[in-house]
Amino acid sequence: MFEGISTMTTRRFTNAQIDRLLRPKSVAVIGASDRHGALGCTLLNNLVQYEFDGDIYPVNPKRDELQGLKVYKGVDELPEGVDCAVLAIPRAFVVDTVRQLAERGCGAAVIYAAGFSEAGEEGAKDQAELGRIAEEHGMIIEGPNCLGCTNYVARIPLTFVETNMKTPPAGARAVGIASQSGALAAVLATTLHPRGCYVSTSVSTGNEAASGVEDYVEWLVDDPATHVIAMYVENFRRPAAFVAAARRAREAGKPIVLLHPGKSDKAQESAATHTGAMAGDFKLMKAKLAREGVIFAETLEELADIATIAVTCPSLPGANMVVLGESGALRGLAFDLAEDIGLDLLHLDDDNSPNIRAVLPDFVPVSNPTDITAVGLSEPEIYTNLLVALLEDERVGSVVASIIQSDPITSKIKFPPIQEAVARGEFGKPLVFAGVDEGANVPQEYIDSLRAAGIPWFASTERAYRAIARLADLAKRDLTDRSGEPLVIDGMETVTGVVPEYKAKDLLRPLGVPFPDSTFAPTADAAAAAADALGYPVVMKAQAAALGHKSDAGGVILNLKSADEVREAFDRMYANVANYDSSIKLDGVLVEKMGTMGTEMIVGAKHDPEWGPVVLAGFGGVTAEILKDVKLFTPDLGVEQVKEGLLSLQQAPLLTGWRGSPALDVDALAALIVQVGQVMTGNPSIREIDLNPVIVYPQGQGVIALDALMLVD
Amino acid sequence: MFEGISTMTTRRFTNAQIDRLLRPKSVAVIGASDRHGALGCTLLNNLVQYEFDGDIYPVNPKRDELQGLKVYKGVDELPEGVDCAVLAIPRAFVVDTVRQLAERGCGAAVIYAAGFSEAGEEGAKDQAELGRIAEEHGMIIEGPNCLGCTNYVARIPLTFVETNMKTPPAGARAVGIASQSGALAAVLATTLHPRGCYVSTSVSTGNEAASGVEDYVEWLVDDPATHVIAMYVENFRRPAAFVAAARRAREAGKPIVLLHPGKSDKAQESAATHTGAMAGDFKLMKAKLAREGVIFAETLEELADIATIAVTCPSLPGANMVVLGESGALRGLAFDLAEDIGLDLLHLDDDNSPNIRAVLPDFVPVSNPTDITAVGLSEPEIYTNLLVALLEDERVGSVVASIIQSDPITSKIKFPPIQEAVARGEFGKPLVFAGVDEGANVPQEYIDSLRAAGIPWFASTERAYRAIARLADLAKRDLTDRSGEPLVIDGMETVTGVVPEYKAKDLLRPLGVPFPDSTFAPTADAAAAAADALGYPVVMKAQAAALGHKSDAGGVILNLKSADEVREAFDRMYANVANYDSSIKLDGVLVEKMGTMGTEMIVGAKHDPEWGPVVLAGFGGVTAEILKDVKLFTPDLGVEQVKEGLLSLQQAPLLTGWRGSPALDVDALAALIVQVGQVMTGNPSIREIDLNPVIVYPQGQGVIALDALMLVD
Repeated sequence: MFEGISTMTTRRFTNAQIDRLLRPKSVAVIGASDRHGALGCTLLNNLVQYEFDGDIYPVNPKRDELQGLKVYKGVDELPEGVDCAVLAIPRAFVVDTVRQLAERGCGAAVIYAAGFSEAGEEGAKDQAELGRIAEEHGMIIEGPNCLGCTNYVARIPLTFVETNMKTPPAGARAVGIASQSGALAAVLATTLHPRGCYVSTSVSTGNEAASGVEDYVEWLVDDPATHVIAMYVENFRRPAAFVAAARRAREAGKPIVLLHPGKSDKAQESAATHTGAMAGDFKLMKAKLAREGVIFAETLEELADIATIAVTCPSLPGANMVVLGESGALRGLAFDLAEDIGLDLLHLDDDNSPNIRAVLPDFVPVSNPTDITAVGLSEPEIYTNLLVALLEDERVGSVVASIIQSDPITSKIKFPPIQEAVARGEFGKPLVFAGVDEGANVPQEYIDSLRAAGIPWFASTERAYRAIARLADLAKRDLTDRSGEPLVIDGMETVTGVVPEYKAKDLLRPLGVPFPDSTFAPTADAAAAAADALGYPVVMKAQAAALGHKSDAGGVILNLKSADEVREAFDRMYANVANYDSSIKLDGVLVEKMGTMGTEMIVGAKHDPEWGPVVLAGFGGVTAEILKDVKLFTPDLGVEQVKEGLLSLQQAPLLTGWRGSPALDVDALAALIVQVGQVMTGNPSIREIDLNPVIVYPQGQGVIALDALMLVD
Repeated sequence: MFEGISTMTTRRFTNAQIDRLLRPKSVAVIGASDRHGALGCTLLNNLVQYEFDGDIYPVNPKRDELQGLKVYKGVDELPEGVDCAVLAIPRAFVVDTVRQLAERGCGAAVIYAAGFSEAGEEGAKDQAELGRIAEEHGMIIEGPNCLGCTNYVARIPLTFVETNMKTPPAGARAVGIASQSGALAAVLATTLHPRGCYVSTSVSTGNEAASGVEDYVEWLVDDPATHVIAMYVENFRRPAAFVAAARRAREAGKPIVLLHPGKSDKAQESAATHTGAMAGDFKLMKAKLAREGVIFAETLEELADIATIAVTCPSLPGANMVVLGESGALRGLAFDLAEDIGLDLLHLDDDNSPNIRAVLPDFVPVSNPTDITAVGLSEPEIYTNLLVALLEDERVGSVVASIIQSDPITSKIKFPPIQEAVARGEFGKPLVFAGVDEGANVPQEYIDSLRAAGIPWFASTERAYRAIARLADLAKRDLTDRSGEPLVIDGMETVTGVVPEYKAKDLLRPLGVPFPDSTFAPTADAAAAAADALGYPVVMKAQAAALGHKSDAGGVILNLKSADEVREAFDRMYANVANYDSSIKLDGVLVEKMGTMGTEMIVGAKHDPEWGPVVLAGFGGVTAEILKDVKLFTPDLGVEQVKEGLLSLQQAPLLTGWRGSPALDVDALAALIVQVGQVMTGNPSIREIDLNPVIVYPQGQGVIALDALMLVD
């Protein structure tokens, strides 16, 4: 059991608590107004227009009646226990109002006003106060600095954005939205609706003073109207809580699609100023969430497109895509794009695919993409037959019909037989329609009809390919939890801070981490004796917690061939280090048997305070440092999963045998990575481990870590 | 003057000749028909429906009249000198019919039928015969295996595809299309038209039996109705002719946008089977065409999007893009995408941009993307003022308004002040409108109005960014021709085939290519004498044209420190090589002074039979071979341009000084690359030069090529 991140984190809020925000039976509008353009006006309009099925309490000291509703002069006049209050008031009044509301038993507050943690110290203080009030009273606070929320199922628009209240019909699949940006939540709904995709509930969380995306995702997982969860997040404030929520979502069969900027340094800076959150470790976040089955969108287009496929199709794409196409030119373009975006196109040919061969005219070779030419215009049944053959093929993970639609006449010929294909069986994989000629005049009814049959329609083929690539990325992950037993280090309690090499090796060696034979020696004579016992040649390395860069200090001397050389080197080393930094006092030296050369790699690990432990491994040396040719491995991965990751390094050909050089012992390297992961889970006080370099020998000959460093709490 | 590719290539056809295809005054329809769905029926319908303003001669032995036109029984009945005949007949009759047509003075033929070079030997033979007939008679042949052509200006549809004959109004800018795929030509017109972009003339060239994209581009360059040229090409059959055409297009101010699959190996294979063309060297093609100002699209989406910007905007984007945005969330996403696609976002802040600061509300910091928040809803003039400030800024190459359109009411607020911006001056750079909420209900009239003002409208921001990135890539290229004088090698006529190291060095050294001091020695005594003269240590290398891999054969011995060692090594080397391959007879050995270590790079060159000479340079060694960390340099580049290319290598940090290591002599490396280019242009008989490794020393200390190999015609 891998418990690097505790998934036992108690949820902060029950569904009943969050219901008071997302399914309220009574809503107070603080700052209700009839002034056109005022937030409190649009909000009230929204509630009245969509006939909110509960009590509305407008609050405004200067009005008696608004929209035919009685207006309350102040919060103190409100009845006790209103479910939700929406604050459409200036920032200055927010904290006091929330306090009053909390005292009157109000269950939730929506705060539109900005100017809190994103605006400096004063704002941050006030935001902390909001958090304190919420915690004290068990109150849900959406925002501040948010656009509110809309429950499309219960028809409750607690937002000042103009809302198209498109309610999912009973039984319809729908997308739940949890977004730290209100703009993006609104944009996503705007994009999904015209595609015939329903939204169940959309929440924008803004600065997250008290409740955040993690909390709302828990609620969406349990919401029967939600089938897919689409998220925009700049920073997970409670990673462990989100991991737990994502795990539950996966168990519930509700895919989570996440758009999270931060791949570039500039995006990380931008996030910090936008909602006042500190940027987390982006790569680590992705490594951890990949293991929880989260699907990653890289653009807003992809977020909508992936959600569209996930909510429209009866199941998610598997790993290998096939394409029915109508032009040879599109084949080459498909290959280029597929390589770019890491999309696997299944190889099909006449020999390996008799069932597909059987449904094609003689002059059309089996291939992928298949180029059926213009023959479908005169023999439209070829669309149905070929698509069914592709959908039935067990090797196939998803099918795209990449179609030249041209005009209404051509569309009329092509759309029905394509739609017909999915009526021919339960295939358990998606069929996606992707137009080639964006902008073609296609009657909307054909598109609607496809969608109703579970076939999403894309205006361009590239868009469909990109979305499927991200979904297939999930399918390609082996999500099995292969966590090994945590490896507990004996004597861990004896070390703290920087642990020098000889101690780190002493601690790790008993667990099976492979090091060269070595002996710690505090004197020249002890060093010579150790070398005699180990056998020559040896290497000598200076040892002290304070000595971070041994080599720079003249603290590594290689290739010592006799006891005399060792003695001489001992004295020279002490002199070197004293010369380098006279404040460093050496514990002694490590005398180590010199090994044979091999390929230098690095294995490191860190325990992130937010995300838990992770192991980093990749190619060592200067070149690799520039290229960042490393991967992150979570401790729940087994040896085979780690090997797969290693073989996707840029320089992986070096591992598998390049130009006649032998294949390297990737198994042993993977085993070491798994082992380091177990050490991290077994010893939570370890902040970092660095094994650099790790020498990888030819297959069957293992690996050996030449250096070791630990940082302990 | 760089004349690696001769740009003096005589055009194969005059515009008057191609006019007979693209502006014919008389058209014969061979295989005219009234059978619904028959190619000869649709074609005839197209001509009649769009009221072709010339003579139509339907040919069909079994009809007397079609569409009210007199039908001719056969080609022999046709009048002499018909401009163009369209062959809507089976493949079997094509060659004889074309021959007959040619003999009757017909100027051009369109051949729809497939089954020629793409279908095997017999087809290739027939295609060659078509080429021969065309050449003999000065005939233009479009196809075979094509979809015909449409002149939208003269309203002449010589195609069997249903055509929307959207004629550009007088003075309108329009896109000319030259495509090897008929499907893609049709698809592109379908996509451009609903965007309000006009097409002038579209030609699909298919197998290019006699005339190809190169010829039609020459015509489009001279066509007054064409302002932008969009191309889909799988293989340039006449690269030099296309280079000449592209150069003329650039002089005429007509951008060429090229979509050319082949980045992936699979795409190259696919192209070979599709139109029977052999795949060329994709990277070389790109390197050469980049110098001619060609803009590269990577997807069909990009081809249409780039053409849309180029034809709609008054000028092309410069190098640095700025964005007016309305949400902080979109900032991070913009940074991530920009980094991915190599798009430069100009850095703007309050300090460096007083003019922009002046037009923003206090609470909006100057930045790029600028996040103006929702303030534009209440103060729409901010759109105009900010856009004008951005357009006026000299640092800015293009401006994007990234807008949340929401609904008709919101659009009505935002569109007019955005459009107003371009009315405020002549800015000489594009303003592009990019929606954020794809699918938003925006009244078409607003979009049309933007376009009429020269502002293209994109449904999504990502699409606009990608297209601008490709266009900015052109703006970033310094296209100045800095060709140096060709360097002619003295004694070049004395060598042929593989030129061994000692001879190659003798030929190149006098031109200034830096090699270590060395002496060729045919005997052990001569070698020892040479080593004495050079000074120790020396390296000895076996020399013979037949010895490709010296090291593998034991033909390189390093670090020889005395005359005795040299003599001994000489004998050992002869034995090694004899043992390796007894058929190799050594010319002797090269004795060379050993130099100091440095960074290993490679410099090579080849003279491509199609594209001319090019120099390749990059990092050496196994790792770099895997990473393909090399660039191609055309011989018209100067030292500064080459340096820029070197500094964009993946491992460029190694060149500029990485972690305290010294910066390397990039100037000297660039100078060597330029020099090798001059050698290639000066000596057209050289097929290849390989300098591997080239050792690069710290700044000011130069470079030195340790090995040299040449391949000569």
